[in-house]
Amino acid sequence: MNSLEKTLFQELDSIPLVDSHSHIDPRQPASRTIADLLGYHYYTELVHSAGMPREEIEEAKLADRDKVRRLFTRLHEIEHTIQWSWFLDIAQDLLDLPRESIDAEHWEVCFERSVERMKQPDWTELVLRESKVERIFLTNDFDDPLDDFDTFRYVPCLRTDDLVFHLHLARNRVRLASASGTAISSLGDVHKAIGTLFHHFKSCGAKACAISLPPWFTPHRVAVDDAATSASWKRILSEDESATEEDRRRVAYWIFWRLAEYCLEFRLPFDLMIGVNRRVYPGGVHQGQDLYDSRWSMIQYSELFNAFPNLKFPISVLASVSNQELVDYAWIFPNVLPHGHWWYSNTPGFIEHDLRARLDAVPRNKLLGYYSDAYKLEFILPKFRMYKRILARVLAQSVCIDRGKSETFAVELGTQILRSNVDSHFLENT
Amino acid sequence: MNSLEKTLFQELDSIPLVDSHSHIDPRQPASRTIADLLGYHYYTELVHSAGMPREEIEEAKLADRDKVRRLFTRLHEIEHTIQWSWFLDIAQDLLDLPRESIDAEHWEVCFERSVERMKQPDWTELVLRESKVERIFLTNDFDDPLDDFDTFRYVPCLRTDDLVFHLHLARNRVRLASASGTAISSLGDVHKAIGTLFHHFKSCGAKACAISLPPWFTPHRVAVDDAATSASWKRILSEDESATEEDRRRVAYWIFWRLAEYCLEFRLPFDLMIGVNRRVYPGGVHQGQDLYDSRWSMIQYSELFNAFPNLKFPISVLASVSNQELVDYAWIFPNVLPHGHWWYSNTPGFIEHDLRARLDAVPRNKLLGYYSDAYKLEFILPKFRMYKRILARVLAQSVCIDRGKSETFAVELGTQILRSNVDSHFLENT
Amino acid sequence: MNSLEKTLFQELDSIPLVDSHSHIDPRQPASRTIADLLGYHYYTELVHSAGMPREEIEEAKLADRDKVRRLFTRLHEIEHTIQWSWFLDIAQDLLDLPRESIDAEHWEVCFERSVERMKQPDWTELVLRESKVERIFLTNDFDDPLDDFDTFRYVPCLRTDDLVFHLHLARNRVRLASASGTAISSLGDVHKAIGTLFHHFKSCGAKACAISLPPWFTPHRVAVDDAATSASWKRILSEDESATEEDRRRVAYWIFWRLAEYCLEFRLPFDLMIGVNRRVYPGGVHQGQDLYDSRWSMIQYSELFNAFPNLKFPISVLASVSNQELVDYAWIFPNVLPHGHWWYSNTPGFIEHDLRARLDAVPRNKLLGYYSDAYKLEFILPKFRMYKRILARVLAQSVCIDRGKSETFAVELGTQILRSNVDSHFLENT
Repeated sequence: MNSLEKTLFQELDSIPLVDSHSHIDPRQPASRTIADLLGYHYYTELVHSAGMPREEIEEAKLADRDKVRRLFTRLHEIEHTIQWSWFLDIAQDLLDLPRESIDAEHWEVCFERSVERMKQPDWTELVLRESKVERIFLTNDFDDPLDDFDTFRYVPCLRTDDLVFHLHLARNRVRLASASGTAISSLGDVHKAIGTLFHHFKSCGAKACAISLPPWFTPHRVAVDDAATSASWKRILSEDESATEEDRRRVAYWIFWRLAEYCLEFRLPFDLMIGVNRRVYPGGVHQGQDLYDSRWSMIQYSELFNAFPNLKFPISVLASVSNQELVDYAWIFPNVLPHGHWWYSNTPGFIEHDLRARLDAVPRNKLLGYYSDAYKLEFILPKFRMYKRILARVLAQSVCIDRGKSETFAVELGTQILRSNVDSHFLENT
Repeated sequence: MNSLEKTLFQELDSIPLVDSHSHIDPRQPASRTIADLLGYHYYTELVHSAGMPREEIEEAKLADRDKVRRLFTRLHEIEHTIQWSWFLDIAQDLLDLPRESIDAEHWEVCFERSVERMKQPDWTELVLRESKVERIFLTNDFDDPLDDFDTFRYVPCLRTDDLVFHLHLARNRVRLASASGTAISSLGDVHKAIGTLFHHFKSCGAKACAISLPPWFTPHRVAVDDAATSASWKRILSEDESATEEDRRRVAYWIFWRLAEYCLEFRLPFDLMIGVNRRVYPGGVHQGQDLYDSRWSMIQYSELFNAFPNLKFPISVLASVSNQELVDYAWIFPNVLPHGHWWYSNTPGFIEHDLRARLDAVPRNKLLGYYSDAYKLEFILPKFRMYKRILARVLAQSVCIDRGKSETFAVELGTQILRSNVDSHFLENT
Repeated sequence: MNSLEKTLFQELDSIPLVDSHSHIDPRQPASRTIADLLGYHYYTELVHSAGMPREEIEEAKLADRDKVRRLFTRLHEIEHTIQWSWFLDIAQDLLDLPRESIDAEHWEVCFERSVERMKQPDWTELVLRESKVERIFLTNDFDDPLDDFDTFRYVPCLRTDDLVFHLHLARNRVRLASASGTAISSLGDVHKAIGTLFHHFKSCGAKACAISLPPWFTPHRVAVDDAATSASWKRILSEDESATEEDRRRVAYWIFWRLAEYCLEFRLPFDLMIGVNRRVYPGGVHQGQDLYDSRWSMIQYSELFNAFPNLKFPISVLASVSNQELVDYAWIFPNVLPHGHWWYSNTPGFIEHDLRARLDAVPRNKLLGYYSDAYKLEFILPKFRMYKRILARVLAQSVCIDRGKSETFAVELGTQILRSNVDSHFLENT
């Protein structure tokens, strides 16, 4: 880091954050031991990739201590990776363990320290304070209770994958009936029930509706009373798990379009996370089975973007080869907003390449910089830090050096990207 | 910029240019006020993307002064972008306004200054001189008059999109009949009429034939007397706007192949600009509605490249993910030439990545570095300057440092890329 | 190169190499004159691309000296490229010719020097010693003799393109019958014959089975006794060259699946080189006719990877746009290993981009850094040197600077990537 990058990083590092996408459980947001940290799928799947059998990693009833010891026998295989650097940051900054000391030989010291620190009653507060994070978006199932946590700090967000892709399963229709208090028989019932969910989420402070989408998904306008969809729905009701792909997709498109209508009505940004194929490697560890086919195009969403000019679409793409399309669709469509650096593109090489492209050509009020995607609070610190370092580097090179802007300008721009745009698009405007 | 880059830039910056692709109107090549500059679709579409309704931007009969004031209420949203840096360069270098002073508060000074300077009788000459540009290629409709401007300075170029894609519209057939003096009934008439156009353009000094192509386009050899195309043409004549996609595409491929034959006969490079989908966002501002689907391949053109080994194909691609294919097809096919950095790939991050790949592996006599694509003369200066800076950087790193070549070597190579290859492929060889 | 990069490079440059993929002929591994070097398709195809007719390059019975003189009339067109830098490295380091002196004017000195040096009896040993290469993998046709060279130094590798894609040609069935001592009539005969090949290769020290695959290839499980494949095979036997594409592909998938089974049985890594379309430019020089369609996905191989969890798949991809999929499939699948930087992606810009992505997120025990793909021994030195420079740069930036690791750590990691992983995956584990 040169001195300009350092200065920019220090300024950016002082900004209080709002994390616009996470998988935090608000009832148990922080870890209890480093077993919770090392249980993050990035570690389990990489350790598995490096050669540890899934059965060893996921052995039932394995005590936290034994799990940590076991994982450390392979973690040296990923000690050069960005994912491991997140763990080292946590160990050093939150657990006061020197990063050089974290290895298979010293796993026990590390484990003990985590037990001791994480059981302190103020651990969660300490982590939040050190991470400088004020509010954190959740990923709530449609039937999650929203009344047993602080919904200011932990912002509800309606996750809709189950509604769009898995309502052919009877158990999900039962869940929907229960959550909405509506018997689910006709598509009209589904429509009404989803409306009830939106009303409920909105009244509990929800600030977004989110969904992850496979590469083949190409949403199109389907009328509420579309006869073909009704026919498909009837077949689905009788066939459940054996429903045809065709019927399931027809219903998926119908429900997706209803979701967009409700998002507009309830003024919730519709957070699209595009590109994932589920269970490509069924033999993988929990949450380490999904991959993708990068052959899709933003043009598949053009009918949607045109149909809802007043609905905001924060968009995450899985692969860096999709980033230029994201940049260019955000450059042209007022309602398309590039959102963070997701999953397989959340590594420094891709972030730098992709961020530079966004800073070259997307209006500054549309850049939603980063979210943690974290399952445990502790990861917010190192992930955002990684991003802020890259943001400082790209601002220094592209904005200050190449385009001659001042440090002050770069810090203001970085602040907007890191924080203010999250406020204006998700919090204030909904 | 380190000192090597600076030296290289200064050398490259002194080279008199030929701009091998623009949309300049030779009868009104320069701007009359900064409203003409800010009317460039890059500004109107980005300001629209940032939130200004199209109706405000394109309000009928809006005076230049009012348009500028209005746009400036949003232009701060793009002040970090490369597109805005072009405007600042113009303001500073051509209008003598300090770039720090260009903002919503000072728009009026800027506007007044532009009125005053641009009305000077030598404004066009001054812009050309400052830009160091000697000749500029145009994009002429097939029925453009070519006798009312200086065709040495403004080089005619036959743009053929209308012929290939829009001859199903009666009005275009009328235009073709009128321009060629040939009644258009059979495909044979079309063939003859296009030959007349080529003869006319060539005799007026045309140096290229150009076309922009959608991602699905896959040209193939079609015989002049192909029966299926004749049948399609007959249906098109009676159906006009309601002609089927299938008939239109069949005729498009037939005409495209005839164009390639004429290009060969008349020794005109066939300038292919590949990858654009038109009107993806019909609600966008003028020229701010087109996007793309990056899922196409250069392999779609292999039959064409094989069929015309003696015809040069300068090729522009819309997205950086197509650049490696362009590099590699140019590496293998003698008649494929990488041409400039087009539109959505004309931003520094992509130019640097793409240019480096071209410099690693494409023969030096085939690298057609850059064209402005400008609608107004003033943009030639900042756009070429942006490119020259990146060219200096890539030459410094890849050629001088990594491959140990001298400064002199790098300057000669840069000169060839910037200028000499335009001469040899477009001007001398045709 | 900064001093950290230099230190890392020097350390990496001292490591004895095993080259895991080449096209060396073990009976004539080194060149006899620089005509052998300049006959490498990189030079002939680039010189052809730059304008020299194929007929001149490939004129029958052209003496080495005349060929060199002729090529040098065009080689200045590629003097900035990475490919030419390989030749200059050879000239300087192996032939003691100053790189500045290598040009059309001095071609004869260069030629004479090569004749003189290369005829020395210890030339091959000298080249190997200077290149620090201990063992080199070959690409053997299935009927190559394996008993007339040193199979420790030149490691046999069974190349299977002919078996999968060209067994519809009678001459290849004759070759297979001859090589296996099995009359080839039914598919069962093919199965048995291939087993014989594996047994033979394995007993001669083969360490891998390799194949190059077109973009459309999507392997799937086919039973040994699949009736449809049997029917296709019968038609192929009678139709030979006129066999339908459908029949040929069905048989290709059947044979491919058998190969995977044998690789598992014989513990040979199955080296997949994915993405090439053959003869896209039939008018090109020898080995300069192949290109590709980058629209394919690693997901096409998911059934294969799932079906053979205990078989290692070192994978090379042709285009950089496929690299992220390769990284991410290697991150998730334990049996997927990124292997080198192949052909059109073997240029510094793409290597650096792609390598950085691999170092960000792939376990260190899975990174197979580089292979030469060389046809003549002399190219191992400059190609590996190019890679080692980039490896030093990426280690310095990503691992030392960005992630705070020590020089020692980086050197150990680089050593594993360059050498130890080749040992563990190809040599020790098979």
